[in-house]
Amino acid sequence: MKRPIGVFDSGLGGLTVVKQLRRLMPGEDIIYFGDTARVPYGNKSRRAVTRFSRENSRFLLSRGVKMIIVACNTSSALAFPALKSEFEVPLYDVITPGVRKAIELTRTGKLGIIGTYATIHSGAYEREIAKLDGSLTVHSMPCPLFVPLAEEGWVNRPATVEIAREYLLPLGGKGIDVLILGCTHYPVLKETIRLVLGEGITLVDSGLSCAELVREEMHPEAGEGRGSVRYFVSDMPERFKEVGRLFMGEEIPDVEVVVPGSERGALS
Amino acid sequence: MKRPIGVFDSGLGGLTVVKQLRRLMPGEDIIYFGDTARVPYGNKSRRAVTRFSRENSRFLLSRGVKMIIVACNTSSALAFPALKSEFEVPLYDVITPGVRKAIELTRTGKLGIIGTYATIHSGAYEREIAKLDGSLTVHSMPCPLFVPLAEEGWVNRPATVEIAREYLLPLGGKGIDVLILGCTHYPVLKETIRLVLGEGITLVDSGLSCAELVREEMHPEAGEGRGSVRYFVSDMPERFKEVGRLFMGEEIPDVEVVVPGSERGALS
Repeated sequence: MKRPIGVFDSGLGGLTVVKQLRRLMPGEDIIYFGDTARVPYGNKSRRAVTRFSRENSRFLLSRGVKMIIVACNTSSALAFPALKSEFEVPLYDVITPGVRKAIELTRTGKLGIIGTYATIHSGAYEREIAKLDGSLTVHSMPCPLFVPLAEEGWVNRPATVEIAREYLLPLGGKGIDVLILGCTHYPVLKETIRLVLGEGITLVDSGLSCAELVREEMHPEAGEGRGSVRYFVSDMPERFKEVGRLFMGEEIPDVEVVVPGSERGALS
Repeated sequence: MKRPIGVFDSGLGGLTVVKQLRRLMPGEDIIYFGDTARVPYGNKSRRAVTRFSRENSRFLLSRGVKMIIVACNTSSALAFPALKSEFEVPLYDVITPGVRKAIELTRTGKLGIIGTYATIHSGAYEREIAKLDGSLTVHSMPCPLFVPLAEEGWVNRPATVEIAREYLLPLGGKGIDVLILGCTHYPVLKETIRLVLGEGITLVDSGLSCAELVREEMHPEAGEGRGSVRYFVSDMPERFKEVGRLFMGEEIPDVEVVVPGSERGALS
């Protein structure tokens, strides 16, 4: 029997991963869960994010997934080791693949990283980079307002450019030649980020790098058919549909509501 | 025995109510709960916000409060009737007092209201206003980015002014003379709002109006002593302390973590 790939995120951001999975492995079935009742994760603690991530993973497992992609950088930074020790299916995070890609691409040896408060303050990126290449310099910057701007669909607006300038110009002055978009929401703001930083800095999209790694390591379903995607959220399915288009670049059909951690979520 | 006043909000916003309670009724003890693990409420559904609000109220009751102030406009708009039917202690919302104040102040009969998506789309303000005076015209505008800007402490920054212009200039052109700040986070952005709209529009602060109404209706604790405030949050106590200063205008001492709805929250 064909088993689906499970993907979860705090909200909409993980759809940038789904978009790339669909492009690279069109035969796969996917089950997506967005925790829209508790979004955002990026300004919350390790303890809270670990609890949420565990509940989301259990929900996906109850749906028979063959692997789980933690398509949220905050969960990847704070909860991944706990999930690894608890669950037996293959688990993928969105930090490691982006780091590998950035190391491949850099020529100056200076990497930039942007993400939520929680991701940046966790030091997860620095640790992962140091593990692979101790000679690199890393400059990081939390960009907490990027998630609400992306969730609002405020792309390329004057206020968004102004906020991007405040966050990014200090990074741009450090001589970095690669910037990791360390939050799956940020690819939606790629154009604005490029506008502020200029073409000299290559942007690494965590979602794309993650999908590439998953394809490398597994044997994707072959065949002509196109796999299905089922979408679940913990709240506000209509809004998820509406803004989700922006992330997926295509229409989102039915969205079902479940509440992981509650009886209903566990049973459904 | 002296029993405390219970106050809850999705996060920091309700502190603007606590600040006014302290000013108007300094002898009262207060227990504050900020649901920082699930903040924000303003882009979530009635069902989710009602569940959260019920759990928060039960936590406050477990602490022996004599009344509950729902210091969150989204909870007031979406969950108040459900709380009223379930709990027996006196309950105050932050919508009714602001509406009364605005009706007192308007001369043109045209009122503006700003708030979260959930508050504005609920129609709670329009209903409350129509109940008291059917002749008034109401213009409303959701300002969803104001909550993250306030929680970031981005007060009077160019980007904040730019975002305020996008939201507020259309309202300013409608001939309103009173604007209700229909979210307890917004008083922190008062100066920016005034800068964009000019001095001709009077701002009504829900938190202040609510504290005034509570003082009118109860008999505040007398005596020379100053009451105590105990702060509880569901996550990130350090950040609450840090940004909370901006809302309270004074230092916030100890902050304790509880998780309403979980065993731990119920027991602690």
